[in-house]
Amino acid sequence: MSQIYDLIVHNINLATLSEKYIQDDNPYGIVENAAICVKDGKIENIIANVEQQSGELETEDAIDGQGYWMSPGLIDCHTHLVYGGNRANEFEMRLEGASYEEIAKAGGGIVSTVKATRETSKKELFDLAAKRLSYLIDEGVTSIEIKSGYGLDLETERKMLKVAKDLNEFSPVEVSKTFLGAHAVPTEFKDRAEEYIDLVCEEMMPQLHSEGLIDCVDAFCEGIGFSLEQTQKVFEKAKSLDLPVKLHAEQLSDLGGSRMACDYNAWSVDHLEFLNPDDVSRLAESGTVATLLPGAFYFLSETKLPPIDELRKQNVPIAIATDSNPGSSPCLSLLLMMNMATTLFKLTPLEALKGTTINAAKALNIDSKVGSIEIGKQADLAIWDIGAPAELSYRIGGNPCKGVIKNGEVILSKF
Amino acid sequence: MSQIYDLIVHNINLATLSEKYIQDDNPYGIVENAAICVKDGKIENIIANVEQQSGELETEDAIDGQGYWMSPGLIDCHTHLVYGGNRANEFEMRLEGASYEEIAKAGGGIVSTVKATRETSKKELFDLAAKRLSYLIDEGVTSIEIKSGYGLDLETERKMLKVAKDLNEFSPVEVSKTFLGAHAVPTEFKDRAEEYIDLVCEEMMPQLHSEGLIDCVDAFCEGIGFSLEQTQKVFEKAKSLDLPVKLHAEQLSDLGGSRMACDYNAWSVDHLEFLNPDDVSRLAESGTVATLLPGAFYFLSETKLPPIDELRKQNVPIAIATDSNPGSSPCLSLLLMMNMATTLFKLTPLEALKGTTINAAKALNIDSKVGSIEIGKQADLAIWDIGAPAELSYRIGGNPCKGVIKNGEVILSKF
Repeated sequence: MSQIYDLIVHNINLATLSEKYIQDDNPYGIVENAAICVKDGKIENIIANVEQQSGELETEDAIDGQGYWMSPGLIDCHTHLVYGGNRANEFEMRLEGASYEEIAKAGGGIVSTVKATRETSKKELFDLAAKRLSYLIDEGVTSIEIKSGYGLDLETERKMLKVAKDLNEFSPVEVSKTFLGAHAVPTEFKDRAEEYIDLVCEEMMPQLHSEGLIDCVDAFCEGIGFSLEQTQKVFEKAKSLDLPVKLHAEQLSDLGGSRMACDYNAWSVDHLEFLNPDDVSRLAESGTVATLLPGAFYFLSETKLPPIDELRKQNVPIAIATDSNPGSSPCLSLLLMMNMATTLFKLTPLEALKGTTINAAKALNIDSKVGSIEIGKQADLAIWDIGAPAELSYRIGGNPCKGVIKNGEVILSKF
Repeated sequence: MSQIYDLIVHNINLATLSEKYIQDDNPYGIVENAAICVKDGKIENIIANVEQQSGELETEDAIDGQGYWMSPGLIDCHTHLVYGGNRANEFEMRLEGASYEEIAKAGGGIVSTVKATRETSKKELFDLAAKRLSYLIDEGVTSIEIKSGYGLDLETERKMLKVAKDLNEFSPVEVSKTFLGAHAVPTEFKDRAEEYIDLVCEEMMPQLHSEGLIDCVDAFCEGIGFSLEQTQKVFEKAKSLDLPVKLHAEQLSDLGGSRMACDYNAWSVDHLEFLNPDDVSRLAESGTVATLLPGAFYFLSETKLPPIDELRKQNVPIAIATDSNPGSSPCLSLLLMMNMATTLFKLTPLEALKGTTINAAKALNIDSKVGSIEIGKQADLAIWDIGAPAELSYRIGGNPCKGVIKNGEVILSKF
């Protein structure tokens, strides 16, 4: 039997999160004491309660899962992983009592990251992001989204997206590339946001799209970012180029960004602390994922919670991501985000796990091929030294990941 | 030169936290581009700006620190690391909306941990705790405190303390053993707390002390724990046996436990969210460390902050620990506690690092031999892939530890 497969993991408990296994009394879609068989990078067979037939499966090239748990490979669907510089100094100054003026004088804030990213070579940006990515892979991540948005000029936005593209090619994981030219107004366009948006729409976006560097278009719709009208301009341009959109929306105030994004069938709207519960139906209608970012909520000491109950009530898929970035979420642990989603946002452990697997896949429009364990999907899998799936959210720190499989290849093993 | 040393690490930046190097403009006591020389498990020499003499130090057995940073080995001065069972199920039930009654019915709460710990063999308790400890060592921990308190009978309290003793002997780190018989009233003593305290004082403590299993005596002084009078009874007994004390105090209410503990020159008082700022002077006078436990604060969604400003004003040493336990802080990352100390308690990164090194050493009365990098102290050291010491607190998750040295031996290397 083994001859026909490239890889078999047996003696393992699966939290499939697949509709094919989920039942009322089995909400994780658990398959106990399973064997999972991989061929050509895909899941070809799943066998439950395998002891009866273990003779057939015990082969030299099989992995003994030792009774551990396996989940779909985790997916981090909102990151700013590519950047130069470091904001630890600013963090320290603030806690030591420095005023915002003093920090700005010392070159702090997003301006400092833009400056450093512009000055850092593509090679060095790649090395920095690859190192950050390695922390995520260590915790079972097999797919990730990376945004531009610290360049704010054509050349640097291109450099960032090329790094994301190179990571897709040369790292073990898949990278979804998001163009976030409309992240902030660069200092050289101070008080000329409209002009900058024109540059984003008329020059950057079409050019970078023609170079194959954009999978999705994003913007920061916020009082300290761009207005609803400016954001809409960006989305109109994306639409004309047949590019999908997503949005940083309702993080610090309610500008109606989510409503507007749903008109463009956004893949996701992200943050959402200030989302009006009345707008949740719009997400449900447009099939837009609600991506929650508890790391930024935590790091910025926010207190207003996203409208979780309403999202649940209307069956809006909820994703959870690191928002990994130097300013508001210097986070390199998606597991910890699952803990924060449960502890701070009171999501259930099941919702947190769906949020980093199947729903994160939906947020990147890759749920037809990843995000759950089922026959025909990519063999993107994480193995965990835990006693039950809820433990992934229960723990505060500590990494129980024992192995990671991407496209059927073992990319991490701590057996 | 190398011949006279057992180990040299060169090309490394030291955050010594030693009074010998600390100055107004160098609060971390940084020694840049240093070489640190170890002999017989101790730090024998520290050389700054070593490029001039690198010829002398470049030897086969030297470690090239590659420009990384080195801190004292981290010290986790408050843990409940030895226990049976798991409370992930209870955590999940609560988030799914189960009432306390339903959870209690399903065997939840501390009672479940006591039951499981009593039923778990010493060998298995050791294996479970050793695995948890390995997560901490992975992040640079070289000394740890472990409490009993899930036995609540002589036999199981002994079993727990023996596991702590065995971990001291057979794990790479040093373990301080704390007797916490007065952790909770066991079910068999329901409504007979006084009788249970008599058992703790008259039977358990003297017996376990005679077996060399107690380094320090602790109690849980709280409305849901033991009264001030009951705690005092425990401390009186400890005093009569010449045993030092520490206390879980002022976590959920102000019973005056800290004040009382200071009368016994407690090593530390721990939690302290409800400590009256007026009582801080008592800590200062008795040289008692204030141990803050941000993990429990976070996990229990507490909102009242410890009186940090007053502690600072009166120069009370502040320690930070994981409080690792299955009920209120299932935490296996001391680095994350440093981040939470800064993010939730607004400590500075320097205070957070002192809190897990020199001040944690003070909380365990081992600061004469560990807790800072200085000549004559034990070579307990952690090596970090960071750009500055503040980064240890700035990051949310992700483990930059590259190496751990205990008593001059390399116990972890990711070079």
